[in-house]
This record gives sequence, C-alpha cells and structure tokens, in this order.
Amino acid sequence: GGLTHYRADGAAHMVDVSAKDVTAREATATAVLRTRPDVVARIATGDLPKGEAVAVARVAGILAAKRTHELVPLCHPLPISGVDVDVVPSGDHVALSATVRTTSRTGVEMEALTAVTVAGLTVYDMIKAVDRAAVLTDVQVVAKSGGTTGTWVREEQA
Amino acid sequence: GGLTHYRADGAAHMVDVSAKDVTAREATATAVLRTRPDVVARIATGDLPKGEAVAVARVAGILAAKRTHELVPLCHPLPISGVDVDVVPSGDHVALSATVRTTSRTGVEMEALTAVTVAGLTVYDMIKAVDRAAVLTDVQVVAKSGGTTGTWVREEQA
Amino acid sequence: GGLTHYRADGAAHMVDVSAKDVTAREATATAVLRTRPDVVARIATGDLPKGEAVAVARVAGILAAKRTHELVPLCHPLPISGVDVDVVPSGDHVALSATVRTTSRTGVEMEALTAVTVAGLTVYDMIKAVDRAAVLTDVQVVAKSGGTTGTWVREEQA
Amino acid sequence: GGLTHYRADGAAHMVDVSAKDVTAREATATAVLRTRPDVVARIATGDLPKGEAVAVARVAGILAAKRTHELVPLCHPLPISGVDVDVVPSGDHVALSATVRTTSRTGVEMEALTAVTVAGLTVYDMIKAVDRAAVLTDVQVVAKSGGTTGTWVREEQA
Amino acid sequence: GGLTHYRADGAAHMVDVSAKDVTAREATATAVLRTRPDVVARIATGDLPKGEAVAVARVAGILAAKRTHELVPLCHPLPISGVDVDVVPSGDHVALSATVRTTSRTGVEMEALTAVTVAGLTVYDMIKAVDRAAVLTDVQVVAKSGGTTGTWVREEQA
Amino acid sequence: GGLTHYRADGAAHMVDVSAKDVTAREATATAVLRTRPDVVARIATGDLPKGEAVAVARVAGILAAKRTHELVPLCHPLPISGVDVDVVPSGDHVALSATVRTTSRTGVEMEALTAVTVAGLTVYDMIKAVDRAAVLTDVQVVAKSGGTTGTWVREEQA
Repeated sequence: GGLTHYRADGAAHMVDVSAKDVTAREATATAVLRTRPDVVARIATGDLPKGEAVAVARVAGILAAKRTHELVPLCHPLPISGVDVDVVPSGDHVALSATVRTTSRTGVEMEALTAVTVAGLTVYDMIKAVDRAAVLTDVQVVAKSGGTTGTWVREEQA
Repeated sequence: GGLTHYRADGAAHMVDVSAKDVTAREATATAVLRTRPDVVARIATGDLPKGEAVAVARVAGILAAKRTHELVPLCHPLPISGVDVDVVPSGDHVALSATVRTTSRTGVEMEALTAVTVAGLTVYDMIKAVDRAAVLTDVQVVAKSGGTTGTWVREEQA
Repeated sequence: GGLTHYRADGAAHMVDVSAKDVTAREATATAVLRTRPDVVARIATGDLPKGEAVAVARVAGILAAKRTHELVPLCHPLPISGVDVDVVPSGDHVALSATVRTTSRTGVEMEALTAVTVAGLTVYDMIKAVDRAAVLTDVQVVAKSGGTTGTWVREEQA
Repeated sequence: GGLTHYRADGAAHMVDVSAKDVTAREATATAVLRTRPDVVARIATGDLPKGEAVAVARVAGILAAKRTHELVPLCHPLPISGVDVDVVPSGDHVALSATVRTTSRTGVEMEALTAVTVAGLTVYDMIKAVDRAAVLTDVQVVAKSGGTTGTWVREEQA
Repeated sequence: GGLTHYRADGAAHMVDVSAKDVTAREATATAVLRTRPDVVARIATGDLPKGEAVAVARVAGILAAKRTHELVPLCHPLPISGVDVDVVPSGDHVALSATVRTTSRTGVEMEALTAVTVAGLTVYDMIKAVDRAAVLTDVQVVAKSGGTTGTWVREEQA
Repeated sequence: GGLTHYRADGAAHMVDVSAKDVTAREATATAVLRTRPDVVARIATGDLPKGEAVAVARVAGILAAKRTHELVPLCHPLPISGVDVDVVPSGDHVALSATVRTTSRTGVEMEALTAVTVAGLTVYDMIKAVDRAAVLTDVQVVAKSGGTTGTWVREEQA
C-alpha cells in the first residue's frame, strides 16, 4: 500500500472516505510513563489521593480523544461512541491504556493514541516538580478491529 | 518538593502562580518515531515529497504547542513567544524535536512535550497504512531554562 | 438504573453507545437570570437595542451547544441537526430557553443545558457592570423525547 | 454606569481595556445542584468512588475556566494564574465553588462563573440517568477583588 | 426562497435539518491572494522552499474546514469525509482552491469557503513582512453537488 | 526584509518575539460581500430584523479574532484588549470592518483580517439560500499602528 494521505502530486490531503462502509470499529493503544518508585508511590498511596491523580489523567485522555481531528491535521472528525482510559501506577512507572469505539467510515487508532498520549503527558505534568526526567515511551497501537483491514493485534516483541 | 498540582486536601487545582516572576523561559523536548527503513525512505525520498510530510508534522506540532493548556488540565495558558519543531527522517526512525519560548510566570516544558508528541502522532498517521506497528518513544524534556529553578539539562544515559 | 458513566471498578468512562439505535431525539432546557427591573428595561427598551443584546446571547448559546462534548467530559460528540435559543427580557428577569435536535445514538439534554447556561452567562456578562449581584437560576431540562427512555416532561412544581 | 459592552450606536463590542491597569484580580462564584439524598449518597459513598466523580467535575470546571473567552463572546482572553474548584456532595445537593485568579486588565468573574457552571453540568451529566429532574441553581458571584472597582462581597440574603 | 437561518419572528437559529436526506455532497470554493511578482517568486523559487510555504497554507485550510461550525454560528457540525486544498503561486498572485466532501444532511459550501479563506490568510501572514498591502479577493463557491438543490456551477463572468 | 516565518533552512517556525517590546498595537481590516440589492434589502429592512443578522455576523467576527492563533499556524497567541466589528448592508453589498487592539509583542493584523473574514462568511451563510453566487472580496488591512514598524495606512487605489 502507499501513503494514502498524499495525492499523486505529493500534496497532503484528507483522503476521501465517502465510499468506505460505515462499520463498527475499535482500537486500543498503550504507553508507559517511566519515573521512579518513590514518585509512583506518591501518586498511588502517598501524599496524593490515588483517585484524584488517576481521574485527572483519565479525563484528560477522554477529552483528547474527542479532539484528535483538531490536532492531527489529516484525521477525519468521527462520531466516537465510547472511550475507556486506564491509568495504572505500578513499580517505577505508570501504565496507560485507551480503547476507543466508533461506528464510522474510518478507524480510531489515532483517537486511541491521542488519548493515551495526553493522559501520559498529564501524569508527567503532575510529577514534573519531583521528577523532570520522567519519560513517556512505547506509545503504540496494540489492537484494532473493524473496517476493510479487519482485526489486527500487535505481535509480542520478545 | 511535593506535587504542587494538589492542595493539602488532595484536590487537583491549577496552582496559583501570581507571585512568581515574569521571566524569559525556554524548554526543548524530543521524541523518536520508530518504524522501518523502507517507510522512512518513502517519507524522505520516495513517493512522497519530503518537504510536504515534514511540513505537515511541523505545523501540527506548532499548533499543538498553542493548545497545551486545553489538553493538559492543570497547565496555565501562556503567551508563547516562539516555537521551533524539527522532524528529521533518518534510517529506521523519524527524530522529533521542539523548542518553545515564553516570557511568563511558568515554564513551557509541557508545551514542548505536546508539540513533539503531536508532531510524532502526525507522522504515525501518515505512515500507519504501511506500518501500523510503528512506535512513538522516548518522549522527554532535554533542557529547560528560566524561572526559579533555572537551567536544567538532561544527563546522558549510557 | 445505575450511574452509567462509571464502570464496575468505579472509573469514569465515555459509555459505549454503539449498540443503541440511531433515532430522532430532542431536548428542551430552561433557565432564568434574575436581576432588577431597571436592568431588564435597559436591555429591552433602554439605552441598548434589544435585538443586539438578545442576539449576542442567542448566538453564544447556539455555539455552546455545539461544544458541549468539549466541555462536559463524558458527553459524546453528536451531529446536532437544529438549535433554537430564546432570550426573553421580562419584569425583573431574563427567561432563557433552548431546544436541541439530533438524529443520533444519545440524547441532547446536555446540549440544551449548555446552550441555555452559556446564553445566561452571556447576559450576565453584559449587565454585570450595572448589577453584579444578578443570579442565574433554575437551570433544568423541561422535556426530552426520542431514544430508549422515550418522552419525558418535567412535572410542574406548585 | 452604562452597559459597557455596547457602543453609543448600540453595537456589541469587546470593550477596549488597553488603558486599564494590570493588577492582581480574583473572583469566587458558587452554585448548587439540587437532586435527591439517595443520588448524593451514590456519589459520595455508594457505588461510585467519591474521588472519581468529584475529580471529573473539578477537572471540567478548571478546563472550562480557561475557555471562558471562547464561550462568552465579549470576554477578553486572560492569562489565568490559578483556579480552584470545589465539588461537595451534601444532603440533597452538591455544592459547587470556584475561585479564579489573574494578573490582568480585566476581572475573572466570568471565568469563575463558567467554571462553577460547567462543573455543575458535569455532575448533572453523571446523575441524569437516575435523576433527570435535578436542577442547577443559584449560580452567582460571591466575591471579587482587584481592579478599579476593588473588593466586592455579596450581601447575605436572609 | 427565504432566509432559512431565521424563524418567522426574526430570530436566528440553527435550522432543523432532521428531515433532510443523508446524501453525498461536495463543494468547491476558490480565492485569490493578490500580491507582487517578486513576493510570489520568493514563495515559489526564492529564499523559501515552495513545498514548505504551500504545505503550511494547505494544512491550515484543511484544519479550518473541520472547524467551520465553530466559526460560523449557524452552521451544522458535519462528518467531513474528504478535503483537498490547493495553493498555487503564479505571476503576481497565489490561487487558492478547496474541495470538501461529506455524506450528511447539509452541504459543505461553508466548509470549502472557510478552508480557502484560512489558507489565503495563512499565505498573507507569511508574506505580510514584505507586502502588507496584499489583498485576499474573489472568495467564492464555484461548484456544489448533492442534496435537494442538486448540482450548481458558477457561470463565468466575462 | 525577508520572510521571517521561515528559518535559514527553509523550515516554517513561529518566530521568537521575546526580544520585541510590549507596546500598544492596533490594526483595522475591511472586506466587502458582494450580492444583489434585493438580498441586501432583506437583511436590512425586509423579512429579517436588521439587528439580528448584523449582530450574528458581528459576534462571529469578534469570536474569530480571539481564535486567530488557532487558525493561522504561525501566529502568536495574544492578549487582545478590544475588538470592534462593523457589518453595514448598503446597495448591492455588505461592507465589513474590524479593528483589533492589543498591548503585546506582535501586531494584530491577522486578528483583524480573521474577524472581518469570518463575519463576511457568516453573512454569506445567511444569504446563500437566496444568492449562492455572492462573493467575499477585497479582504485587506487598511491601517495598523504600534510596534517597530509604526503606523501604516493603505494608499487609496483610484
């Protein structure tokens, strides 16, 4: 396949999806915010109620999913029908996961990636005063289903 | 230091920065989009004019920097005075870098991270039809200056 | 019924509405901005053309209805198919009303409430220089139709 | 005083504040969402972790404060320097309060009202499946300080 | 036909399109940014890579099409299914063109006009340091198809 | 002068204005929407209250000025301190004018152009059902003052 976001003359465009079928589609993305155990401890059990920090990041991710087409220029606006975002402090990192669903002509991989990324940046924002060196990493699609290309699941990398 | 985004009762808030000095501040963030050499070749010299793909990602990053406070809930709106975003295809990856400047009461680390992240997601969006498994990784602040905490540069990790 | 915006584990999510029917739906909300007769007189017949003040509030309400899903985190983006906003100065108050329509999988109560609320705040903004003590009150859904739960009309409170 | 948002010819405009002093300003607004004790019990101690519901509404309010000038047409964009939002379930209602601070040429009453209103609508959105008849009421500025008109505190209404 | 954006009582509203058919619709708009040949030469072949300047304006136009309903108060939000924007430097001007497609209940003339206009303003922004007197002109719909009124093509003005 | 929005390597960037002075700045832009006398008559005195149509376009222009930096990628976010928009139906056209003021490091020409353009598109949206062939033309800066380059007034073109 080619890079469909570009025309034969090389110009970027929002590819016309009018002829594609309206089907149920779903995508899940994950990411990891790497920090230190003492920082994770603060989020999870320390001087900060876990519910509050996790909820703030979760809401940021859900809201960001809805704004994906404003941020990623060639994305189509989509009637998102559901979003789940998980923010799980554990050991020396915070694991992030987002699943987005739609019934539409295009997939929601970018929406899932945007949700998980903004949730991760929101956690970074909360902890940067105590660990500016934290790193958001492994931002990736782990599964998608629906549409012409059907179901895809990321192979494990050993 | 503690988690300043939370009050003594654990509630998230946008911390009051009224008493902080208005000073020149700058931050640089980087990230890497890992894909395959044949995909990078397409972006850089193949069926897609390099300038167009790079420019689309760059513009997405610049615009995203300006919307950071809409995406990251506890960030302050800032009068951003300059943004540079670099998108450099090379080997099996695309290197992303963003520098943001302001004259304000708070720093611009989040703005630099948001710029580099959205630029990276935009590149992913362009190539996902040929490499859905591409990964955005190593999203991190590499340097910041200005404000109370002054200059900080990330130590190299060998 | 339970609080559907939360999962079994208590996490907020945008509930998946993929399986709900696409049907015509409508909701009407009302509110009242309480101020003083002399202030209302200015809006309606005094030193300010009534059409201009009313139109500004009306436009603000219509635009706000379209942004409901950006403001209320767990709301779904919807293809709104019609919005009417009424702003009626009368006696010591300004009566606000908004009706929103869609053909979608979820209802538009939140859109109607957002429209009427922002219209009311816009009137307050116009008069706050002469009556800072004005109060926006009785913001409520008065009727909705369509969807699984069908038609509902608020009972009169005597 | 007159209605400053309108010119001598009756046209709405964003009044020129160039000549006003840049000073520290603060405003607090409150509102009440009236529902039923059993609904409040669910939010506070029942099938929903209190922290999550309260945090979602709080974040919605904080984000809304930053978008006030996009919603209320004649408001000036402001460098908001701090926002606190409180969401307190109690008896048969949820009490909402927001305090906003800036160092700017205009006040932040509208920002405080927008924060408290959107926080209240977010609570309504969470409970509407169990109490569609809930009402957001008593949306009002209770105190403001700074600027030409100085400090103002709402008189108690017995 | 009358001015459908207004009710019988003269109030602006977002007209209810619930009863209109969901059909494929397309619209094309054009505009011209008039400047000087030496300025056009800089964009096209001079000290600025043509691809970069053209791509920045193109992306701005594509993004703007998606935000039409936020800018033009009485426009309906639409599931845009494709956008092409062309930015062609030539002689003493830059020719702008945008085609937008949807499958929806209303047309996309406003989206095409918004795309071409914002692309033109973006070119102006780039050149204003060397030609503040440049003019954006002839912003017009040149063709639309689909919907109740079917196909329409602008007659040539000799 | 060169095209400051581009670096020596041709990359677009948001130019760093940190070193520029914070001064009072103002810009005025105008445009004309050309239609037919019978259409203008409807807006001004016919089946539509003049105040309502003019007010809707005016509000759209004021709101658009505040969003200029979201639309034009290389524009800086600015603390706009005042906006006036005039919409004057006359003969076979509607004359549009916008004046924007700020106290900032960069000028507000783009804000004035965005205001006048969106106001014009809003009028087109209102009349397109009766004159799809209407044209927005002569979008131009007519005066600016403040900043390094001082006052500039467009020469009359006879």
